[in-house]
Amino acid sequence: MVEDKILNTIKKHNLIENGDNVLVGVSGGPDSMALLYALLSIQTEISFSLYIAHVNHGVRGREADEDEKFVEKISGKLGIPFYSKKIDMEGYAREHKLSSEDAGRRLRYKFFREVLLSINGGKIAVAHNKNDQAETLIMRFFRGTGLDGLKGMEYRNGDIIRPLLDISRNEIEDYILEKNINTRLDRTNLENIYNRNKIRLELIPYIVDNFNPNIVDTLWRTSRTMSNDSEFLEEFSKERYRELVKVEDKNSIILCRQKFSREHIAIKQRIIRHSIYNLTGTLDGISEIHVRNVLELFERGDTGKSVDLPNRLEVKTSYDDLIFRIKNLNVNNNYKYSLKRGQATYVKEWNSIFKMEVYPMEKIQLNFKDRFIKYFDYDKIKGEIYIRNRRLGDTIQPFGMSGNKKLKDLFIDKKIPIDEREKIPILVDKNDIIWVVGLRTSEKYKITPYTKNVLVIKYKNL
Amino acid sequence: MVEDKILNTIKKHNLIENGDNVLVGVSGGPDSMALLYALLSIQTEISFSLYIAHVNHGVRGREADEDEKFVEKISGKLGIPFYSKKIDMEGYAREHKLSSEDAGRRLRYKFFREVLLSINGGKIAVAHNKNDQAETLIMRFFRGTGLDGLKGMEYRNGDIIRPLLDISRNEIEDYILEKNINTRLDRTNLENIYNRNKIRLELIPYIVDNFNPNIVDTLWRTSRTMSNDSEFLEEFSKERYRELVKVEDKNSIILCRQKFSREHIAIKQRIIRHSIYNLTGTLDGISEIHVRNVLELFERGDTGKSVDLPNRLEVKTSYDDLIFRIKNLNVNNNYKYSLKRGQATYVKEWNSIFKMEVYPMEKIQLNFKDRFIKYFDYDKIKGEIYIRNRRLGDTIQPFGMSGNKKLKDLFIDKKIPIDEREKIPILVDKNDIIWVVGLRTSEKYKITPYTKNVLVIKYKNL
Repeated sequence: MVEDKILNTIKKHNLIENGDNVLVGVSGGPDSMALLYALLSIQTEISFSLYIAHVNHGVRGREADEDEKFVEKISGKLGIPFYSKKIDMEGYAREHKLSSEDAGRRLRYKFFREVLLSINGGKIAVAHNKNDQAETLIMRFFRGTGLDGLKGMEYRNGDIIRPLLDISRNEIEDYILEKNINTRLDRTNLENIYNRNKIRLELIPYIVDNFNPNIVDTLWRTSRTMSNDSEFLEEFSKERYRELVKVEDKNSIILCRQKFSREHIAIKQRIIRHSIYNLTGTLDGISEIHVRNVLELFERGDTGKSVDLPNRLEVKTSYDDLIFRIKNLNVNNNYKYSLKRGQATYVKEWNSIFKMEVYPMEKIQLNFKDRFIKYFDYDKIKGEIYIRNRRLGDTIQPFGMSGNKKLKDLFIDKKIPIDEREKIPILVDKNDIIWVVGLRTSEKYKITPYTKNVLVIKYKNL
Repeated sequence: MVEDKILNTIKKHNLIENGDNVLVGVSGGPDSMALLYALLSIQTEISFSLYIAHVNHGVRGREADEDEKFVEKISGKLGIPFYSKKIDMEGYAREHKLSSEDAGRRLRYKFFREVLLSINGGKIAVAHNKNDQAETLIMRFFRGTGLDGLKGMEYRNGDIIRPLLDISRNEIEDYILEKNINTRLDRTNLENIYNRNKIRLELIPYIVDNFNPNIVDTLWRTSRTMSNDSEFLEEFSKERYRELVKVEDKNSIILCRQKFSREHIAIKQRIIRHSIYNLTGTLDGISEIHVRNVLELFERGDTGKSVDLPNRLEVKTSYDDLIFRIKNLNVNNNYKYSLKRGQATYVKEWNSIFKMEVYPMEKIQLNFKDRFIKYFDYDKIKGEIYIRNRRLGDTIQPFGMSGNKKLKDLFIDKKIPIDEREKIPILVDKNDIIWVVGLRTSEKYKITPYTKNVLVIKYKNL
């Protein structure tokens, strides 16, 4: 029953397809253990590969180590590849002035993505359930997020999937009991995330007693209708953005002021956010007030006045132009290094070393698990091989995909901030991109059963 | 300061214009007394007429009578016309199976509209403030309303205006103290409206202590952004509706199925609501589930299947048509009566009597306060005068307006249910509508300084 519901969710939202790599984040607690076993059962319906990642948050010493051992043992028993990492959540939080919750989340996803890179890409499955969704909505409601916050967590957001979003905590508990699944007590939730806990343990029971016994289901429905409305407004605004944009390059976006002024305020605000996101690769640190300031500037339209935003972004108006521009972006920082067989090349802009070798297929043992080694079909390479940073108009056929993708869009999808975009090394031959380091390899150069000679690139970050 | 803020709100949202009639609902409590005095002060900036309406809810016997006397006395002192009515809120609630709150609201607005009719139309000013707005948002959030609920109460909704929506309860209390305004304790709020009270007295203080000390301001901002998004989606959906609609008559609406199927689900749901509202004049009793059922019917598209909705509305599909139809609506109930000078005419469909007289201007004392007498410029009348019900294509130039308005749209704006629309008597001459009884008189026939002869219509509901 629970497994059927999860399978339904997966199919309805197209979360997992045949051939996918799915990396499950497993803490050892009931939610993630239920997710793991449900996904195992679903492998009979959809053929995908499972991987397990465990993060040791570095709090509660011995207990955390035991959690890690527990998950590792389960992985071994199930024959599923296991990856783990110890992180210093509290230290990172102090250093970057974040809440423990935010620090933990950032470090977790950073690790998950590292693992994904080493398994040639895939999806990260996390165990958020219906009750988590309700808690999220309440927290966001109190914080004052609008429509786009109250849609809640999404079934799918980039490479993150949430197959349990339609399943309540009670259903998970029943499933754990029914299947006799061993779990560890997930103390992290109880200790660190103060606000969420107050909502779970005090506020929701109060709402249930006084206002709405089905509050969790009610808020789940709210998230669904909000999600529909938000999706439409996003799509519509992006369409309008494309009609408004006059210039869109590395360090600036220029919109047509006349056309902008004709839009509804709900659309104007989204076009502003969209412009900021496209240019800087993030909306972190952008609050409602920033957007309002930009909007006021655009509506007054004083030529010469400007508004400063985070990430060195400057917004100004000039006659018929609305201008977003990154200040002090050195656009003359192009670099290019030639790679030679058997030689190591130091790329100072990325502080890393690339070593290139070529072997006949029968002479080499491929190790796809080592994420610092990449293999390509050498006979498909044309001309010399270089490491360089991005150029205007770069495209790649990403591994596993049939069409080409603009590098710019890849950066946007992967949420790469603007400064990083200028530095990321790209492996190219005469014609094409072979590998965007840290992000994607190309479908065109992949190893196949017909590969005769293998290009081996060893990569080391200093 | 408070008065300036209120004046700002009024100007920004265009709530009151020169020449308006503004009827203030005054309970005698701090909010409505503050509203009354603030509006008085604003009369120096905008020239409008004030009227006071007080509703005696018929609970708490003697105390309620004293409230009424208190407001009457203030009205007298200020020289403002005073209207009051005793209603049986609890009886009406029992009879119509409503909460006391809903019953009270319905009866109050019914009375306010009766008064408006007698003063030749105008606006109803109510004293909802920023804190009321926050409470409303929380209640609706717990109930699971989407975007269109979380926009909260509007500054202006039809003929209702809310000049205090930007003012907090604290600001009102300070204003009352500063101006030394006498008020009565508004016990009704404390006694009857259980949910709102729990939110005011328990929940908001808890949120302030634990999550957000500025929750009232935060939710006020939420209501603003939600309102923007909702407004855009409504406007956009209405546009789409107009492109989808093939037939729109008295008892049916037919949409083009092919075009409908291409819309986003967020827009589809709004088009369905819009169709229901246009046809029946109300969305009361229409829940999310009704809309979802209609949507599923439309998406499956089984010709011949149908969904029944409240207000005798039936929805079905037929080949390329999506059909909304009122069942058993007698469309052959047209009526028409000729009015004769000096004679009384009984209109059985409205159970009322109309008496027509004509006087030279100098022979008559006009009494605009008597809402059962209407005056028109007799020399502008062409041909005979009739009382009839609506006909296809009827339009009117409403009093105070320069353009014509479809009668259908007037009914929709005034939220007249479909059955009423068939019955409402309309005074016409050969060419035009003179008066839609109970709703609007025509600009064309109004009394002016040049009027020589006056058409007097006396109206009595039996």
